[in-house]
Amino acid sequence: MLNFNYSIPTKIFFGKGQVDVLEEQIKDYGTKVLLTYGGGSIKKNGIYDRVTDILNQNNIEFYELSGIEPNPDIKSVREGVKICKDNNVDLILAIGGGSTIDCSKAIAAGYYYDGDPWDLVSKKAPVTNALPLGVVLTMSATGSEMNSGAVISNRETKQKLHIMHSNLMPKFSILDPTYTFTLPKEQTAAGIADIMSHTFESYFTLNDGAYLQDRFAEAILKTCIKYGKIAYDEAENYEAKANIMWAAPNAINGLVLCGKNAIWSVHGIAQELTAYYGLTHGVALAILTPVWMEYVLDDERVDKFAEYGVNVWGIDPNKDKYEIAKEAIEKTSEFFTSIGLPKSLREVGIGEENLEKMAQAAIDDKGGVIGNFKPLYYDDVLEILRRAL
Amino acid sequence: MLNFNYSIPTKIFFGKGQVDVLEEQIKDYGTKVLLTYGGGSIKKNGIYDRVTDILNQNNIEFYELSGIEPNPDIKSVREGVKICKDNNVDLILAIGGGSTIDCSKAIAAGYYYDGDPWDLVSKKAPVTNALPLGVVLTMSATGSEMNSGAVISNRETKQKLHIMHSNLMPKFSILDPTYTFTLPKEQTAAGIADIMSHTFESYFTLNDGAYLQDRFAEAILKTCIKYGKIAYDEAENYEAKANIMWAAPNAINGLVLCGKNAIWSVHGIAQELTAYYGLTHGVALAILTPVWMEYVLDDERVDKFAEYGVNVWGIDPNKDKYEIAKEAIEKTSEFFTSIGLPKSLREVGIGEENLEKMAQAAIDDKGGVIGNFKPLYYDDVLEILRRAL
Repeated sequence: MLNFNYSIPTKIFFGKGQVDVLEEQIKDYGTKVLLTYGGGSIKKNGIYDRVTDILNQNNIEFYELSGIEPNPDIKSVREGVKICKDNNVDLILAIGGGSTIDCSKAIAAGYYYDGDPWDLVSKKAPVTNALPLGVVLTMSATGSEMNSGAVISNRETKQKLHIMHSNLMPKFSILDPTYTFTLPKEQTAAGIADIMSHTFESYFTLNDGAYLQDRFAEAILKTCIKYGKIAYDEAENYEAKANIMWAAPNAINGLVLCGKNAIWSVHGIAQELTAYYGLTHGVALAILTPVWMEYVLDDERVDKFAEYGVNVWGIDPNKDKYEIAKEAIEKTSEFFTSIGLPKSLREVGIGEENLEKMAQAAIDDKGGVIGNFKPLYYDDVLEILRRAL
Repeated sequence: MLNFNYSIPTKIFFGKGQVDVLEEQIKDYGTKVLLTYGGGSIKKNGIYDRVTDILNQNNIEFYELSGIEPNPDIKSVREGVKICKDNNVDLILAIGGGSTIDCSKAIAAGYYYDGDPWDLVSKKAPVTNALPLGVVLTMSATGSEMNSGAVISNRETKQKLHIMHSNLMPKFSILDPTYTFTLPKEQTAAGIADIMSHTFESYFTLNDGAYLQDRFAEAILKTCIKYGKIAYDEAENYEAKANIMWAAPNAINGLVLCGKNAIWSVHGIAQELTAYYGLTHGVALAILTPVWMEYVLDDERVDKFAEYGVNVWGIDPNKDKYEIAKEAIEKTSEFFTSIGLPKSLREVGIGEENLEKMAQAAIDDKGGVIGNFKPLYYDDVLEILRRAL
């Protein structure tokens, strides 16, 4: 087990009706709030009304930044920073999923920076401080509600970068599974693929002796597998939605990564599919993950895949380890298909036209090599993309 | 899944050599420290020297409270509070295991209270504030290094009570597995029984739909089983000691309990064996746990035991569920034996003389009934104690 530092101060309020804590939580930070959200679904399902009622009843002055896009753009960040600075906002309250939360984190950091907030994302300037951030979660996927990272895109410069700072950790996050009841099933599925991918990226490493963390990872994977199809089919199944909702942050808050020697692989390739085609992040991960698994499977890595097959999928440990590994990969692929996710790039209208460019961009972004379970170079990435067609 | 609140702000610094962070961490709190520790083993294994060197190099003035006893007594708390008040201490630094940490938590709360600190433990007065607490852990067991609870005894009034407040959560805890290398193997074993019991107490519930939490619990149990014997046999096996050390706080920091409807059972009985005979807490738990499991096994509970047998012990799920349950209980018992823990009360010199008194004291302490997996009344507790003979 490698050395690690670990701390998750975010106060989680989990369960039905937990939005009631908002009143008490907000009071700790002040009287002026920036409300951030996306496309407006929260106005249809009543969450917006519930939150603004609480704010009004408590004489909280609030401003709004709406229309935050999937893969949030620095433009929205700039807009949010301006509102916060113009009005001396005390707290940002994000209502939504990962995009809204990530954008809000960048706004929180941008508030304390005099220049263009893109400087913070592009590491031209360091994050020094951040406005406090609260979250009302409406989608289970990125886990941004309980960690200190955010991904911000700059469509002008065609960049998508990661920003991370302990001050970006939300102060509190309200996770009410009923708030995911109205989510379109495609988004539920993409979210589950994202949660599983976060877990896989930490789980698939070589011999780091972090046994407990790998068992935690298997717990999350088993939960996604047990409840994924139920959550997809039955929008209002509380138990399924609750387990998925609690799996999401635990997949990426450090629990399964701490003490492990994991550098992520599939995310680095998937992001190019989003950059080039606007493909939903979780969909890209679902297509690429089984292909990547098959591609990297070899004598050095087969034991880890066998471990995955036995512990997560319950495959008979007495079988040949390659047989277990292949069966596990097949089951992974079938699981994604069972929740309506595509198996190939062609299914989502992507052809051979940009494979080389995407492979190059993917490795350029990571200094020439992606991941460390099996380090992937240009030829590897290109081959994975080809096989994903 | 039940509603829950969750937050673990303690900064964990895990791994070999992490004591180096002490310099930076302490500076956040001031220049006067109360060093708390137990019987003095830290003076033999070099930990005391290393810590005091760091304090001296940083011109930190420090006072000492040594000799904190297992099952820490309110007398030590009073002594510590006096030192802190007399010297305006800024931070308490506990070097040790659960007893030292628990005592330090009560001192931290007592500093802000004008009366006798026992008032805080006995709930006569509420905890309002607490001195910041840092931990250098030397034993894996109670998990006190990463939660907000403490257990304090009052030998004069023959009471042993639990105190809990979010301000008692350590600010930082240094978990260096090599610091457990010199621990006597009996203590390693007792610690493992304690970790497993904490996990069992949260795991064994009826149908609360907290699937993820139960898989996390199984992760901890499998870790204890995989590394327990190795840690017992090979004092300096880093991987084993590291996995056990990280399992301990996760067994009792909320991860496996949140969202579950669990009221503990075995701890309530075990504490009477400690109160009446001074029996080591972990040893009492190891003796009682398999007996309790067998006693409560019935049609309503057999499915949970079968789940335990299949998921933790890898027993063939096609077997009859009672067969799985009994095999799992037998394996639990054998595991404890394999790490040198006794199987019966007679083995540790305890006879029939106080069984009735202990059963009565156990239920009196819990308002007449212990636990909720199968609620235990006087007759149940007495029968469990009898079977444990």
